[in-house]
Amino acid sequence: MDGPLKNLLVLDLTRVLVGPYCTMMLSDLGARIIKVEAPEVGDDSRKFGPFIEDYSAYFMSLNRGKESIALNLKNEDDKKIFDKILAKADILVENFKPGTLEKWGYGWKDICTKHPRLIYASASGFGQTGPLKELPAYDMVVQGMGGLMSVTGQPNSEPTRVGTSIGDITAGLFTTVGINAALYDREKTGKGTFIDVSMLDCQIAILENAIARYLAKNEIPKPMGSRHPSIAPFEAFKTKDSHIIIAAGNEKLFEKLCNVLNIPEISKDPKFNTNSLRSENMDDLKKILEDKLIVKNTGEWVSEMEKEKIPCGPIFNIKEAVENPQVEARNMIVKAHHKVIGDFKLAGNPIKMSNYKDQKTRGDIPDLDEHREKILKEFNN
Amino acid sequence: MDGPLKNLLVLDLTRVLVGPYCTMMLSDLGARIIKVEAPEVGDDSRKFGPFIEDYSAYFMSLNRGKESIALNLKNEDDKKIFDKILAKADILVENFKPGTLEKWGYGWKDICTKHPRLIYASASGFGQTGPLKELPAYDMVVQGMGGLMSVTGQPNSEPTRVGTSIGDITAGLFTTVGINAALYDREKTGKGTFIDVSMLDCQIAILENAIARYLAKNEIPKPMGSRHPSIAPFEAFKTKDSHIIIAAGNEKLFEKLCNVLNIPEISKDPKFNTNSLRSENMDDLKKILEDKLIVKNTGEWVSEMEKEKIPCGPIFNIKEAVENPQVEARNMIVKAHHKVIGDFKLAGNPIKMSNYKDQKTRGDIPDLDEHREKILKEFNN
Repeated sequence: MDGPLKNLLVLDLTRVLVGPYCTMMLSDLGARIIKVEAPEVGDDSRKFGPFIEDYSAYFMSLNRGKESIALNLKNEDDKKIFDKILAKADILVENFKPGTLEKWGYGWKDICTKHPRLIYASASGFGQTGPLKELPAYDMVVQGMGGLMSVTGQPNSEPTRVGTSIGDITAGLFTTVGINAALYDREKTGKGTFIDVSMLDCQIAILENAIARYLAKNEIPKPMGSRHPSIAPFEAFKTKDSHIIIAAGNEKLFEKLCNVLNIPEISKDPKFNTNSLRSENMDDLKKILEDKLIVKNTGEWVSEMEKEKIPCGPIFNIKEAVENPQVEARNMIVKAHHKVIGDFKLAGNPIKMSNYKDQKTRGDIPDLDEHREKILKEFNN
Repeated sequence: MDGPLKNLLVLDLTRVLVGPYCTMMLSDLGARIIKVEAPEVGDDSRKFGPFIEDYSAYFMSLNRGKESIALNLKNEDDKKIFDKILAKADILVENFKPGTLEKWGYGWKDICTKHPRLIYASASGFGQTGPLKELPAYDMVVQGMGGLMSVTGQPNSEPTRVGTSIGDITAGLFTTVGINAALYDREKTGKGTFIDVSMLDCQIAILENAIARYLAKNEIPKPMGSRHPSIAPFEAFKTKDSHIIIAAGNEKLFEKLCNVLNIPEISKDPKFNTNSLRSENMDDLKKILEDKLIVKNTGEWVSEMEKEKIPCGPIFNIKEAVENPQVEARNMIVKAHHKVIGDFKLAGNPIKMSNYKDQKTRGDIPDLDEHREKILKEFNN
């Protein structure tokens, strides 16, 4: 891939989601990724569904375009190979439990003197420091402990997880920000750096309204279904055939909305004429709006409201989301190749940069240890 | 702030969440942020709750440490001031509706020849291209159209929004990745770049399992409450006093879990002895596990399971999440100062870098136009 990180080599010790998501982004930005996997088993996620003919679509979607070599970092011969790749690497990324790489002699402190330009990024459940650092964590554990699950769901419903592994993904994103900032820093200082990202920390960093509410007002926010805690109207409403999302929090948009629904008097009503008042009286307002919305289908309302530039939209399932012409136009569904399965579709890169072409394909899916010979030949010199 | 981006100047035209979240991260990484706000009204989010004494805690939490100047970009005198800041800026960030800055003569194409080193990042609802580019969008609209809401919630529940504005936040993160990659690129090429990030694209980019399932198998995933679609057990279970999250998807962890619950035979049961089988038979397995879990409180189970390094945890509300000693130890709650309210707590920066100290405070909260004189004096030369 051409991109801002071309000519950079990433030594990728990551498994499952948080780390592979980060190195996938580095790959999309143009870096070369050598993925080091445990012999025989490889990345755990090679066994996670959904599968196509025994191959994990989950693994494939995260590891396209990476090269794979199987190395046992407790074995002296394998360590020699690893050392040779390491000597040429710009970036090392890992998401083992803190202390694991130290045990094998590859902790940041063990290798930073020998490799002062290396950028070394560790993503972990709780971070490299603090009382919980030794504990393992997966996505859901940090969605729960980070407070996000306490504000997601219907009022009084059973616990509700965000339907994607947002604990991993946000930590993968913050790690990628850190690595890119460290690359810039290295240009200025000549020095690498150690980056320590904790999935739990990242959950705290994305709580926005909820944490502001607690820290400022001592209120403990609760799940509100589809409703926004401080902008109104900003939620899903029933229509004749399904639901429509309307986000019309400011006075101008609310007035337009009332006009489209043919209830202009409501926008002047002293119960509803500011955002704060609408937030307070949202239960009443919802009834008034749904009385009108229920007479037409979502599609009809969306076209009427889009004409007035009122932010609104349907709730798409995954098929509808992927088939949206806007998603197609933005090249957000790309292809990669697998030697058995053939071409395979996956999500694209949302960072569109004018200096580089946003490719329609990604590199091939690696089998475990597929690139051993090529890598040995290249790095043995 | 000291950090990898020190000595860089960001001209910040952002409002509400996606853009301000990005420039907040740039500020945490050491850049200087000059926020240009509309005269009189300023950033819309100055009017969003929660409030402390008429000041928006929401605005404060996103804009600490930024300088504010009010400029009307339709006014010729104000444009001259803007031009002078622009001439010295490294990065411009904006999240207007596509076309807005072009109207004022400040689109990327209008200014890139004069400022070839400028990195210009635009975050918008649907992006700068494609059939929907003209439409406005807020967080919930892209949560709905991006498919995330279709996999979040209880089975058959009313529509459920992720309890934080993940549409804005992930787009803010991808934009920040792009800006940092562009800074590195500029060191190599001497050239700036235009970065176009769409909130909808970012929703597609974070669907992981759900999109892999659809693109690989043509299955349309549905909301599953707290359950993970392809790892089991990986969900919330009832205990005597509340719930516990357990994420024990591999054989070794599942065996440990069965031992702690004193049902070792279950880990050998041919209905449950692989992850795929457990996923298929999860309803039955859940009953078996909850029969055991219901006899003790969450806290007791968490300590027993932590001893065995089984990934697990409670569902914390925001107060509990913030008061977790791990969060304190990681400096994830920091302070900023407001001249009327005094000291004010907010979320910290999850990117911990060994080369820079993770400060316990952030810069002050700016009033609208507070830094006008200082900025005029500095840039008028």
